[in-house]
Amino acid sequence: MADEQTTALMTDMYEYTMLDAALRDGTAQRRCVFEVFTRHLPEGRRYGVVAGTGRILDALERFHLSDSDLAFLADRSIVSRETIDWLEHFQFSGRISGYREGEMFFPNSPILQVEGTFAECVLLETLLLSVLNYDSAVASAASRMVTSAKDRPCMDMGGRRTNESAAVAASRAAIVGGFQGTANLLAAKMYDLPAIGTAAHCFTLLHDSERDAFQAQIDALGKNTTLLVDTYNIEEAVKTAVEVAGTELGGVRIDSGDLAALAQRVRNQLDALGARNTTITVTNDLDEYALASLQSAPVDSYGVGTMLVTGSGAPTCAMVYKLEERENRDGVMQPVAKKSKDKATVPGRKLAYRSYEYQLADCEHVIAGSEEQLNAFQPQDNWKDLFVTYVGHGQIDHSYQGHDAIMNAHRHRAEALRELPIAAQSLMKGDPAIPTETTVL
Amino acid sequence: MADEQTTALMTDMYEYTMLDAALRDGTAQRRCVFEVFTRHLPEGRRYGVVAGTGRILDALERFHLSDSDLAFLADRSIVSRETIDWLEHFQFSGRISGYREGEMFFPNSPILQVEGTFAECVLLETLLLSVLNYDSAVASAASRMVTSAKDRPCMDMGGRRTNESAAVAASRAAIVGGFQGTANLLAAKMYDLPAIGTAAHCFTLLHDSERDAFQAQIDALGKNTTLLVDTYNIEEAVKTAVEVAGTELGGVRIDSGDLAALAQRVRNQLDALGARNTTITVTNDLDEYALASLQSAPVDSYGVGTMLVTGSGAPTCAMVYKLEERENRDGVMQPVAKKSKDKATVPGRKLAYRSYEYQLADCEHVIAGSEEQLNAFQPQDNWKDLFVTYVGHGQIDHSYQGHDAIMNAHRHRAEALRELPIAAQSLMKGDPAIPTETTVL
Repeated sequence: MADEQTTALMTDMYEYTMLDAALRDGTAQRRCVFEVFTRHLPEGRRYGVVAGTGRILDALERFHLSDSDLAFLADRSIVSRETIDWLEHFQFSGRISGYREGEMFFPNSPILQVEGTFAECVLLETLLLSVLNYDSAVASAASRMVTSAKDRPCMDMGGRRTNESAAVAASRAAIVGGFQGTANLLAAKMYDLPAIGTAAHCFTLLHDSERDAFQAQIDALGKNTTLLVDTYNIEEAVKTAVEVAGTELGGVRIDSGDLAALAQRVRNQLDALGARNTTITVTNDLDEYALASLQSAPVDSYGVGTMLVTGSGAPTCAMVYKLEERENRDGVMQPVAKKSKDKATVPGRKLAYRSYEYQLADCEHVIAGSEEQLNAFQPQDNWKDLFVTYVGHGQIDHSYQGHDAIMNAHRHRAEALRELPIAAQSLMKGDPAIPTETTVL
Repeated sequence: MADEQTTALMTDMYEYTMLDAALRDGTAQRRCVFEVFTRHLPEGRRYGVVAGTGRILDALERFHLSDSDLAFLADRSIVSRETIDWLEHFQFSGRISGYREGEMFFPNSPILQVEGTFAECVLLETLLLSVLNYDSAVASAASRMVTSAKDRPCMDMGGRRTNESAAVAASRAAIVGGFQGTANLLAAKMYDLPAIGTAAHCFTLLHDSERDAFQAQIDALGKNTTLLVDTYNIEEAVKTAVEVAGTELGGVRIDSGDLAALAQRVRNQLDALGARNTTITVTNDLDEYALASLQSAPVDSYGVGTMLVTGSGAPTCAMVYKLEERENRDGVMQPVAKKSKDKATVPGRKLAYRSYEYQLADCEHVIAGSEEQLNAFQPQDNWKDLFVTYVGHGQIDHSYQGHDAIMNAHRHRAEALRELPIAAQSLMKGDPAIPTETTVL
């Protein structure tokens, strides 16, 4: 398998040294249950949005060690010869279940549950966390922005403000979080997402006059294009734009200054020029607060960059991957938990439900216990089971990958948010929108 | 060329639509100079550290369009048939120069300068910014942490808290910023960096007793390994660790609680047990402020995660890519600049020097003008030229790529920081360590 396609070294070294030590003493084959959760949301946030599970499945398909990966582990003496032999044939054969993409999560929600031997579960830790922590941070920020934008479409334009591969993940997570499209072409290609973009200031500066630039853009992209009007003087640019394109001009974009005031002036100017259907897009360092303040301005769509791809102040979730249950030396499954200060965990595998009253969510229920106890557990009638199965016996459910899965997640987010108390949509800092009750059976 | 290896779609759509329009009206062949700079440092920061230019060169080598990339652009009608034909043979043939990796930068420093036709320069915009904005954010944070850690080595353990590919870039940038090693195996493999890691809490939990876990780790990794001692009770764990490994035990790691107080207790306990050479590593949500507060605690090395890979409050730099000079319709090079509110730029290509008095930097000098003027410009004797040439006539200088370049950047950062006024090393919010004077010739 080509080197570039493998994901098995996208991980911390200790996953491999633990594997090595556990293979040596036989504990590597113990059945284990690991879970991903976060102890807290970013300060004042009411909910988070799960994103990235589809990408985890993509990465799992490429979780093999290439010859050069194996040579690296051997040359550095990171693991023993026996472990190299084991890794040559490694394939995850366990089970992965958890929250849907687009689902709301809260502190202690068991977002992902991974079951298998210690060996196969431990190797996935870093990669699963990298994907979920970043993608969910972006989707969670996106969701707040979409709420603030009301019915106006939000477009991802943030690729230049994050790592070039993170940018692709961010575009995807933005769609999960409620965005409508992205400027990023690789994301558009990989996931069949709507792509947007027309021209930057440099295109106007390249030309001898703004008129030449607008004419060139319209010749290439048609009158329905969006012209960027703030390179020199906005009022003159809008006049020139309508002169060149006529009143059928698709749209104008404003990328600087007081966006609300400028949008109002430009709207009035466009209307006066007869360009009543020409739309206005604004794009200058927007976040959920700026979007909320633009609600009464005559804006048709938003381009959001930096604050989207950096999670609007919370560039990562604090998700962790913890061992919850494992076989003991007698082959009996036992709940386990560390007792580290401020980091203690509730032992045992979990189930998760959301309860409703009058179609409105009122509580997240996390049930911890043994497999037997959880199999016998009877949820109440108004409880929704939050778990889906992504991987069973090593077989990936492909319905959670690719374009359709992203659009399902996009729709699910909107529905799940509507079912939360309206306080979830507040930008004021506060507690999680619903409480989480943990029951140990 | 295999799809996975191309970088040409790691970009915003408008770069391609601008190319398309400019090819159509002939302006695509105009010679242009673009520059990367930032208008401001993150609030209160005294300097930034350039990182990522070596990765830009790596990405440039793979900046071709695969057949499926071209098919995507055609199928979506993003560009015309003629542009597809042009793109099939695209190769950057221009010049890239700028600040060294590991160099300090300030507001308006011309960090990177790209010269070529509009067509070839515009296509690089998003990718260059993605790399520089993220890598420099991490290196800048790393540099402050390393200063706070004094002579104690800092290790990157942040991969799980950022996108899985960003994690690899972050490891590399951390080394540029002064770190000594990384937990990330793919970064260690790609760039031949020191890798570190032993075991997590799950390894202790996997075993029937902490003693079993320690024994297993020592059997596999030797007595020189680092044992994690805060899964249950630190005092008991330290006792068990020395019982199992003897006084040759390499180190212990503490990942929770009041690190300074715990390190002191553990140091005393280890010493009392005769394990005087056993080192102490601490790793719990460290940032530059936490590291500064640990200076008097008996700690030997630090593992830094979240705050490193998220830029310690500044997860991206605000670097932009602006057209500074271009040919007009008569083939004459002309400085250009937009006038957008709060975003106006100084027209013209730039040179950059740093002046010194008594071996101490006192000012950054940015000189703007035409190529002729800059060629004739005579810097003063105590001015250092900050530019190096990365790419000339499309030919990459490979000395700026790979392991050696990273280690050169690592050393350069340390030297350049020593040459800045000591206020640069302050964690107090303040102005840039030296002023930047821009002179328009």
